[in-house]
Amino acid sequence: MNGAEALVRTLVACGVDTCFTNPGTSEIYVVAALDLVPEMRATLTLFEGVATAAADGYARMSEKPACTLLHLGPGLGNGLANLHNASRAQVPIVNVIGQHATFHLKCDTPLASDIEGIAKPYSHWLKTSRKAAELGKDGAEAVLASRTAPGQIATLIVPADVSWSEGGQTAAAPQFPRPTKVANKQIEKAAEMLRSRLPTALLMTGNALYGSGLVAAGRIAAGTGARLLAPYPLRRLQRGAGLPRVDRVNYVLEQAIEQLKEIRQLILVGTQVPRAYFASPGKDSLFISSECVIHTLALPGEDYVAALEDLALELSLGNNQPDAVQPERPSIPKGSISLPGLASVIGALLPERTIVVDESMTSGRGLMAATHGAPPHEWLGNTGGSIGIALPLAVGAAVACPDCRILCLTADGSAMYTSQALWTMAREGLNVTTVVFANRAYAVLKREFSYLGEGGPGPRARPLFEIGHPDLDWVQLSKSMGVPGTRISSLDEFAKSLNAGLQAGGPTLIEVPL
Amino acid sequence: MNGAEALVRTLVACGVDTCFTNPGTSEIYVVAALDLVPEMRATLTLFEGVATAAADGYARMSEKPACTLLHLGPGLGNGLANLHNASRAQVPIVNVIGQHATFHLKCDTPLASDIEGIAKPYSHWLKTSRKAAELGKDGAEAVLASRTAPGQIATLIVPADVSWSEGGQTAAAPQFPRPTKVANKQIEKAAEMLRSRLPTALLMTGNALYGSGLVAAGRIAAGTGARLLAPYPLRRLQRGAGLPRVDRVNYVLEQAIEQLKEIRQLILVGTQVPRAYFASPGKDSLFISSECVIHTLALPGEDYVAALEDLALELSLGNNQPDAVQPERPSIPKGSISLPGLASVIGALLPERTIVVDESMTSGRGLMAATHGAPPHEWLGNTGGSIGIALPLAVGAAVACPDCRILCLTADGSAMYTSQALWTMAREGLNVTTVVFANRAYAVLKREFSYLGEGGPGPRARPLFEIGHPDLDWVQLSKSMGVPGTRISSLDEFAKSLNAGLQAGGPTLIEVPL
Repeated sequence: MNGAEALVRTLVACGVDTCFTNPGTSEIYVVAALDLVPEMRATLTLFEGVATAAADGYARMSEKPACTLLHLGPGLGNGLANLHNASRAQVPIVNVIGQHATFHLKCDTPLASDIEGIAKPYSHWLKTSRKAAELGKDGAEAVLASRTAPGQIATLIVPADVSWSEGGQTAAAPQFPRPTKVANKQIEKAAEMLRSRLPTALLMTGNALYGSGLVAAGRIAAGTGARLLAPYPLRRLQRGAGLPRVDRVNYVLEQAIEQLKEIRQLILVGTQVPRAYFASPGKDSLFISSECVIHTLALPGEDYVAALEDLALELSLGNNQPDAVQPERPSIPKGSISLPGLASVIGALLPERTIVVDESMTSGRGLMAATHGAPPHEWLGNTGGSIGIALPLAVGAAVACPDCRILCLTADGSAMYTSQALWTMAREGLNVTTVVFANRAYAVLKREFSYLGEGGPGPRARPLFEIGHPDLDWVQLSKSMGVPGTRISSLDEFAKSLNAGLQAGGPTLIEVPL
Repeated sequence: MNGAEALVRTLVACGVDTCFTNPGTSEIYVVAALDLVPEMRATLTLFEGVATAAADGYARMSEKPACTLLHLGPGLGNGLANLHNASRAQVPIVNVIGQHATFHLKCDTPLASDIEGIAKPYSHWLKTSRKAAELGKDGAEAVLASRTAPGQIATLIVPADVSWSEGGQTAAAPQFPRPTKVANKQIEKAAEMLRSRLPTALLMTGNALYGSGLVAAGRIAAGTGARLLAPYPLRRLQRGAGLPRVDRVNYVLEQAIEQLKEIRQLILVGTQVPRAYFASPGKDSLFISSECVIHTLALPGEDYVAALEDLALELSLGNNQPDAVQPERPSIPKGSISLPGLASVIGALLPERTIVVDESMTSGRGLMAATHGAPPHEWLGNTGGSIGIALPLAVGAAVACPDCRILCLTADGSAMYTSQALWTMAREGLNVTTVVFANRAYAVLKREFSYLGEGGPGPRARPLFEIGHPDLDWVQLSKSMGVPGTRISSLDEFAKSLNAGLQAGGPTLIEVPL
């Protein structure tokens, strides 16, 4: 058995059976091993930024790592921006990056590069394998590192001769560590705050926002009057009718301050104090009052679910039921396109168990409100602010959850970053319905520019914020990659196309001109 | 004057008047400064990998740096792969990367990242500016570093508050250093080798391959019988009727060995000993005989043109004329599509002064032979082996040379990496005629796989080398971004479409199904 086969067998033994890849010459030994290990499912992407975001989406939904298989330093470089987002999502990912044969590296041929240097900024664990006999063990270590709470990015660099040499040995799955439990005094302090009945909120992430974590948080909210909050950079949130209500913090500074102004005590569950993504001259970026008392119930990577369940027990709320959001849907509006109207159509039609992938940016600000009483669904956002995540994140979520429908809401500017994901949706027949909000602008930047107090952008700055001239034709772009597309011109048409898309087998795309 | 304005004014004062950008919030102060400094021409790209390759293409043709303006660590990350190629092309580029305000960084908001870490692997010079008053000076230092021979990548990281703060000071253009002249003994040694009349070749790069460098090399070849060679990873080569003949080294190991087997002495002008990009088990990657005598006439960054001119003088060939390639064109073939036929059509129709950007990969192997006697033209290749350079490299070359026609030859696999460049071509009305060789495969990888000696790829490996299912529709993809496209089905149609494209104002695209 060569090193590559030992690596693939080990990854499968460790529960990593899904690979998102764009391989090159250095990786063909690993590709060849796929024919020997059918348990590993490999999905081709036409650009590495699709592979890394797909691994992120897969991990958010399956709670275990996928691996990527990428070509040398440049291939990893193309995947970095969505590794940035994945790093902020705190998901497990195992990157397998091919490298030149060890004896070839010194020749400094054109593709030689400092792969470790490129990997370092976004790798919590990083190793270049040295021997075929160790590649299995290295792979198991990478999986172990990735599964270290709250979820880490592990990068294993595999020289070609380490892959192709005989002597590979499969390693057994290690014991994956449980997240650390929080100290009792953290729970007691949180309980004391909640008993005070001062306006209190829990700002949560990770598995506190779905499943048993969300149920425990819901009990606490119901029993104490506390508000439940999720950060704007949203990893995964289970929501809708019958589930506890969790409000997502707004993106815009002024709106977030208004949203959070009553809060006097804030309890953090794996999160940071909420603030604006960017600083502006003369403005404080903090979303909450400087007098607000902050308590960290659980640090990132601690056991959020146990902390919430223990807190509910401490508050004697163990058997209480959470307050459930009441079923409520907007009616389907008709007439000309408007952002509230589009949000209402989505709220009216969203099927149960849909996974909503949301990078709708400025166009989607009303979506959370319009869908809060829809049947139970999941909501995934952009965690790191690097645009271009939605389409490939949807790919990963669809691969993880083949029985679910994915509704991918994206802006035109961000979708242009990784539009290659449409091709992978078509090839794999993924059930992804994509809505492109085409406002033909980097609208966030136009708004930020208005803060400069210099009036609007002038004739040389303005074209850098506008992505019309020429207008992108999303229907043709989508069809060019094998995904049926349609452009709507009214809310009626949107409802019809959305309904059709949500019931189609395979991917579709709807362009919404704004 | 704020820091951003001082930076832009300084860049212009230093001769950097062209910017390829995809800005974000951290960069809007620099964007705002563009309205105050109309001498700076900024071109929007919809993905940062387009910006960095465009800066490369611009530098190859204009022999001076453009700047990029990119958003934080992820924006730079998206540009890395083509910075890899630019680094191997040894061109000057000044990257301006926005950063969070210095006081905001500690808040670790979602877009915070280790920008210096991301920049380091591909930056010969790297600095984070600290004060508005120093930003002009830092910009001038960056330009100076970029113009250090043979051409370097300089990355200046600009925190938002350094941009927005008052107190900016424009810096004057520094004296740009001349490349170092090579020592006399290097020239004498080369002359001695050439006088021996043993089969000798000069393998050259940089400005040895065009203009006065090429003329001097041509005199040497004519006077001594030496062969002139260019590396397969080709930065820029001037060629065609009336110019000295330079052969590009083949990509494929066996073909390159055959091509170079007669050579007994090899003189390097800014190049390395030629070898295969990748190592294979049990094969030597070297293209030349191990008995071949190697002499380095000029190291990378030394003065190639002076070295060649001095060498011609040393050989008393100063007034000789180079042997000129005779005008010769294939006739236009008709009938069904074939690679030799496509090459002949291009050879028959290539207009004088065309800049050919060539990332045609496996499909383009016959192109150099078919065009060698065409009217004088320039040839730019992929220098670093990271695919996805052709379309954006063409953007940069077109911006640098608005009076030239660009013929962009690309494979489908590589063009999918940075297809967003088509939109920039349309917006800017660039005279780029793109030909996509659509073989629906990563054909290089299929061939490499055959070397494994395991037969063809099996059912799980094969789909990772094929990019059909679904087939990409390049006509629709092109039109979706505003570039008229057509698909040809015979050589007659190819000739007609190519001719029309080469005479059109603005960009066009031709899909060649293979």
